[in-house]
Amino acid sequence: MAGFDVIGKATPKRDGADKVLGRTRFLHDLELPRLAHGKILRARHPHARIVRIDGARARALPGVLAVLTGDDVEPIPFGFARDQTALKRGKVRCIRDEVAAVAAETPEIAQEALDLIRVEYVELPAVFDPLAALAPGAPLVHEELGTNAHHLRYRFAHGDVDRAVGQAAAVVEDAYRLNFVTPACLGTLVAIADWDHAENLTMWTTTQVPFLYQKDLAAALGITGDRVRVLQPPVGGNFGRGLDLYPIDVIAALLARVARRPVKVEFDRVEEFIACPTREPCTIRLRTAADRDGRLVAREAHVTIDNGAYTSWGSTTPYVMLSTVAGLYRVPNVRFDTTIVYTNNPYSGSMRGYGNPESTFAVESQMDDLADALGIDRLELRRRNVVKPGDVNPQGFVITSFAMTECLDAAAEDIRKDPPPPRPGWKRGVGYAAMFHVGGGARIYRSDGCGAIVKLDDFGKVTLITGASEIGQGSETVLAMIVAETLGVPLERVDVVNSDTSVRPWDVGTHASRTTFVGGNAARLAAGKVKAQLLEMAAAQFEEPAARLDVKGGFVFVTAEPRRRLPYEQIARAGHFTHHGRVLVAEAFYDPPTAMLDKDFQGNVSAAYTSAAQAALVDVDPETGKVEVRRVASAHDVGRALNPLAAEGQVHGGIHMGLGYALSERLVVEEGQVLTQSFMDYAVLKAADMPQIAVRLVETLDAEGPFGAKGLGESGVIPVAAAVRNAIKDAVGVRFNELPITPARVRAALQATRP
Amino acid sequence: MAGFDVIGKATPKRDGADKVLGRTRFLHDLELPRLAHGKILRARHPHARIVRIDGARARALPGVLAVLTGDDVEPIPFGFARDQTALKRGKVRCIRDEVAAVAAETPEIAQEALDLIRVEYVELPAVFDPLAALAPGAPLVHEELGTNAHHLRYRFAHGDVDRAVGQAAAVVEDAYRLNFVTPACLGTLVAIADWDHAENLTMWTTTQVPFLYQKDLAAALGITGDRVRVLQPPVGGNFGRGLDLYPIDVIAALLARVARRPVKVEFDRVEEFIACPTREPCTIRLRTAADRDGRLVAREAHVTIDNGAYTSWGSTTPYVMLSTVAGLYRVPNVRFDTTIVYTNNPYSGSMRGYGNPESTFAVESQMDDLADALGIDRLELRRRNVVKPGDVNPQGFVITSFAMTECLDAAAEDIRKDPPPPRPGWKRGVGYAAMFHVGGGARIYRSDGCGAIVKLDDFGKVTLITGASEIGQGSETVLAMIVAETLGVPLERVDVVNSDTSVRPWDVGTHASRTTFVGGNAARLAAGKVKAQLLEMAAAQFEEPAARLDVKGGFVFVTAEPRRRLPYEQIARAGHFTHHGRVLVAEAFYDPPTAMLDKDFQGNVSAAYTSAAQAALVDVDPETGKVEVRRVASAHDVGRALNPLAAEGQVHGGIHMGLGYALSERLVVEEGQVLTQSFMDYAVLKAADMPQIAVRLVETLDAEGPFGAKGLGESGVIPVAAAVRNAIKDAVGVRFNELPITPARVRAALQATRP
Repeated sequence: MAGFDVIGKATPKRDGADKVLGRTRFLHDLELPRLAHGKILRARHPHARIVRIDGARARALPGVLAVLTGDDVEPIPFGFARDQTALKRGKVRCIRDEVAAVAAETPEIAQEALDLIRVEYVELPAVFDPLAALAPGAPLVHEELGTNAHHLRYRFAHGDVDRAVGQAAAVVEDAYRLNFVTPACLGTLVAIADWDHAENLTMWTTTQVPFLYQKDLAAALGITGDRVRVLQPPVGGNFGRGLDLYPIDVIAALLARVARRPVKVEFDRVEEFIACPTREPCTIRLRTAADRDGRLVAREAHVTIDNGAYTSWGSTTPYVMLSTVAGLYRVPNVRFDTTIVYTNNPYSGSMRGYGNPESTFAVESQMDDLADALGIDRLELRRRNVVKPGDVNPQGFVITSFAMTECLDAAAEDIRKDPPPPRPGWKRGVGYAAMFHVGGGARIYRSDGCGAIVKLDDFGKVTLITGASEIGQGSETVLAMIVAETLGVPLERVDVVNSDTSVRPWDVGTHASRTTFVGGNAARLAAGKVKAQLLEMAAAQFEEPAARLDVKGGFVFVTAEPRRRLPYEQIARAGHFTHHGRVLVAEAFYDPPTAMLDKDFQGNVSAAYTSAAQAALVDVDPETGKVEVRRVASAHDVGRALNPLAAEGQVHGGIHMGLGYALSERLVVEEGQVLTQSFMDYAVLKAADMPQIAVRLVETLDAEGPFGAKGLGESGVIPVAAAVRNAIKDAVGVRFNELPITPARVRAALQATRP
Repeated sequence: MAGFDVIGKATPKRDGADKVLGRTRFLHDLELPRLAHGKILRARHPHARIVRIDGARARALPGVLAVLTGDDVEPIPFGFARDQTALKRGKVRCIRDEVAAVAAETPEIAQEALDLIRVEYVELPAVFDPLAALAPGAPLVHEELGTNAHHLRYRFAHGDVDRAVGQAAAVVEDAYRLNFVTPACLGTLVAIADWDHAENLTMWTTTQVPFLYQKDLAAALGITGDRVRVLQPPVGGNFGRGLDLYPIDVIAALLARVARRPVKVEFDRVEEFIACPTREPCTIRLRTAADRDGRLVAREAHVTIDNGAYTSWGSTTPYVMLSTVAGLYRVPNVRFDTTIVYTNNPYSGSMRGYGNPESTFAVESQMDDLADALGIDRLELRRRNVVKPGDVNPQGFVITSFAMTECLDAAAEDIRKDPPPPRPGWKRGVGYAAMFHVGGGARIYRSDGCGAIVKLDDFGKVTLITGASEIGQGSETVLAMIVAETLGVPLERVDVVNSDTSVRPWDVGTHASRTTFVGGNAARLAAGKVKAQLLEMAAAQFEEPAARLDVKGGFVFVTAEPRRRLPYEQIARAGHFTHHGRVLVAEAFYDPPTAMLDKDFQGNVSAAYTSAAQAALVDVDPETGKVEVRRVASAHDVGRALNPLAAEGQVHGGIHMGLGYALSERLVVEEGQVLTQSFMDYAVLKAADMPQIAVRLVETLDAEGPFGAKGLGESGVIPVAAAVRNAIKDAVGVRFNELPITPARVRAALQATRP
């Protein structure tokens, strides 16, 4: 570990104690003078014409400050495809649709006012299946488009798939079905809006992309971005939920503008199930071809996505699905296409892994089935096809540090060690899956950068003002560690400021596992400049050139005579309180050396790529169909584990989410209605449901990453479902190609296979 | 105005509209989850031994969260002389003394709990007069000192005063008596304290020296300064009140530490009169000697200050009084000494002008009387003695830009123009007074510096993060103007962040009229660096060297071809969203090229000095003694008037405060008890009481000041009392040497002089 003081040491998350002790002030807890409370009235039908909205009785209710419908506000479209407005006019297209909003003195009055609003609808025929939505004569979600086919399409071709498939020794083809799941954040969505007299807006929000949010919200309100200040108090989970602007934010701002008071809109749990963006439901038709040695020769995928009524990030996940299809294992010939279709279902957003859990489920299920078809060991087949450092993949991704072989070996080793005792009568199986993901940012926006300002004060307190956002993932802690290590000061002397756009430099946001890599590099650069300033100060005090000095453990010392040393804060104070004194402040901006994908989906989007491999050990009860995951072994190429504790925590959390995706979680949407209403219905795994977890952090010391680190935030969740699916197949011989693999499905499948 | 776009334009204060509209969220309005409320129990007697404090009944009251007495907390002394603790042990020394404190769920419960605390005292003989306190056998305020004489002493000698006096043509000597006045802020003192789990403290406070407060409060709590974050929401006035740490702050933190909840302590109006630091009561014995031409040959002063029971900044004001005695007019021989004495009165803090209104009252009253003695015109006498650019005064102050002659001429001209109609039977008089004050900071601390960070974002929004504190004086507005002018962008695009030590670079605080000069220079330097970065970006886009480009009015243009131009935010965006792009951030620290006074009170403490002259036109009713000030003409050397509207406003406010000091305001303290209880008793002048005001801003374009500006915050208040006193003398022939000059005093004096 090259003598690091801070880096590589298991370090508890900074926000942990407050959260455990119930002291965290979440966004939900925020109080403001004269705070009013907003509520949203949603559609009763998934597709209906609005005939009339009568808000008169609501307006007359004492304590009501504002009642808004689509007719009261300018209909400025927003969102990825600019296909929705905050308050709907004319018709509703899904059950989530916002038809009116109220601000009142209390949440109770606001609710009472909502109940007083009368909306007359004429129901319209609706469509809930993407293929049915493409049929001639299907009801149109957006009549003005003349079709339900979305203009979004991700089409990629590399090599000659047809020829390769024609010459292949084995070809496996299947369709994989993925359903709605929701991030199920313990903290629901909240937006608090407050306008000042000069029409500047302050928003307290659950966003995780504050600078894009600032731009998008401003546009949705018809103002310029400089009028929007974004504040991000602690949130109870996000997992990608905060990657887009949603009607809740616009409505809070519209209500506050009319009420001339700060307005808070907070989802209750039912509303969170209905209106929180989900993982997109999709079908992935996948074909993989290999030669007789098991070397992949071609892969072809067609992804059909139920876009829902409007477009958010969910329909853009093929961007990442493609990278799995083209990048998870070496494959010389690749074809990829999508069908994205408007329906009257709720729409999807981004969710941890962003398409990759979906596509990895398909690709790794198929790898396993291919091994069966070829009669090659499942692990051996994977080993023969691993991507290696030096590769440039079909999309032009340049692979530098990369340890997929090591990850596969580690997972295989850990899953076999001291197995837990089997359950009598149950069938045991082991399954494997790997994954491929960006680990050095992902240039999906023109800048993938992050800014940082570091100041070191008279008390030796170091403050990092970072563009990077904390959403519970531990970025505060790891960024503080990077600054402490770079400056050579104790970790507890470093504070992180990361929740106010008015003081933070720009950052593209928390997504794509990029914060440690990109935010970390920015922090490291700024801290390095402050260190240089400090050594310059020290040079005058030691009467030695700065080049002969260093800082470590909180002391500035003469490198050749380490006993000549002074506490760093003493240097800082002396350098401040002197003739021509100064304080220590520096800034930096880091944007990875990457490119956006071009129109052919080619380009080196990330400064580093990473891999992971997981193995799942399952016991299956053939009678009940119950699947018990006994152990997950998870090996990750992390570049360097800056904070091994947090890294393991990220993997644990990912496995938790992945197991729910694999086995139990499903947001039930039927005929456009969200039937899931509570955590009694939505089966997030409980602590007691969790298996043994063995995490291996494989260090490849990436040349571009801060101290060699790469991103890790998403990789824990990505392979889980495939590994579990493959383990179940190993146990009972059934190939499940749809999630979740519930006991009912397993039992039904086992009964069907019985003679 | 050299083509300025922003500088020199009358610009409304940024906080003005919100304050007028009642929308400002003052510190008083702050809400926090689980906020508890603290109250302080004070001494019943000005000097008494505490026999017993029984808090049992208070502790038992439902809703009480903490009850603290001096016995419950470590007695860490704090303050200028480390002579008080937050909660007193053993005895009380003045009526302000804090003997217990309570935190409770509501302010009402806290008050009820206070009423339940029983304190047994044994009264001690007390002393309320400084000279009596020095008499042998006087009761000792601090027994351990063995004397009531304070160790603080300001002793200065330059030249040979005795010889000069011996040879003088005229010598005038008198004693001038100044009483307690209080800043009478509309917003009372408030402190809100909140500890996190790691024992870091966040304080929301009325301080105006956040970085010194951070240090002092930490010391008073036995923690290091890096654990204290200081937040400064808007306050309703400060005027120097916030220059020191007071028990309210320490008590709020102690209560919060015990209650493990945020605690707010807020003074009510009665408490504010009792416990807000005041202007120090003092007697200035002054002697001035001149030759027959009226040229000053010597001045000698002895200041006796009633220190009260503990020591805050009030007893350090001789630092400034000396600069008036030695610096207001050329005087070659100077002697100065002080007697500072502990009494059982309340103690004083700093208040706008910081000794200078007091000393200027003495010096300018005496100048007028000297003119009488010599038979020289009062203005002419002053003109003959003015300090001029190039002077180095007896303390070593280096006078650069300086326009006292111009100020005297302007005030004399304005006071005579179109006089208001006289009142029948009333006597009219005109009086003059000038003043001398620092205008380029004042190095009373080892650093007189201020830091600034400027960022320019994708929307063209510029944010200045400044160390400088806004206390209603208009610094936000003028600092934004400086940044806008330097960067060449519209003023409304510049925001100022100035209320959180966690993001601000260091500043010594708001005092000594230093913010425009020092904070302004820091802002100008940081903005200049951002401008250079912007022009570098533009150079790539225009394909011209940066040196051939400039920014003005929000456009970057080719200097030689102004029609080749682009909006600056477009340059910033293009420079961000490009290969190797970056965002625009820069920082600077400015510390004026000055020196602290040495042990002999010699040293060039300020980078610039300033002067003002005022004339007052009064009508005096000989029957009732009522003095009506009809007009004040006020001329100020401001270097450059960056914001003439705010500059005039500062002068108006100063005149308002000065007229109250001259004529009506007095905090009545008798036998150690504060008798003033409300604004009915404490006669702050109302709007209708204000005279015509004619302000002249004389521009000397100081070489060191930002755009040539110098400080102005205090100069409006300083000469007022002397000018009014001299006008009353001009009207009715009576020399008043004690303030306030109430109608009762005037009537009594007139009756006494009648035959």
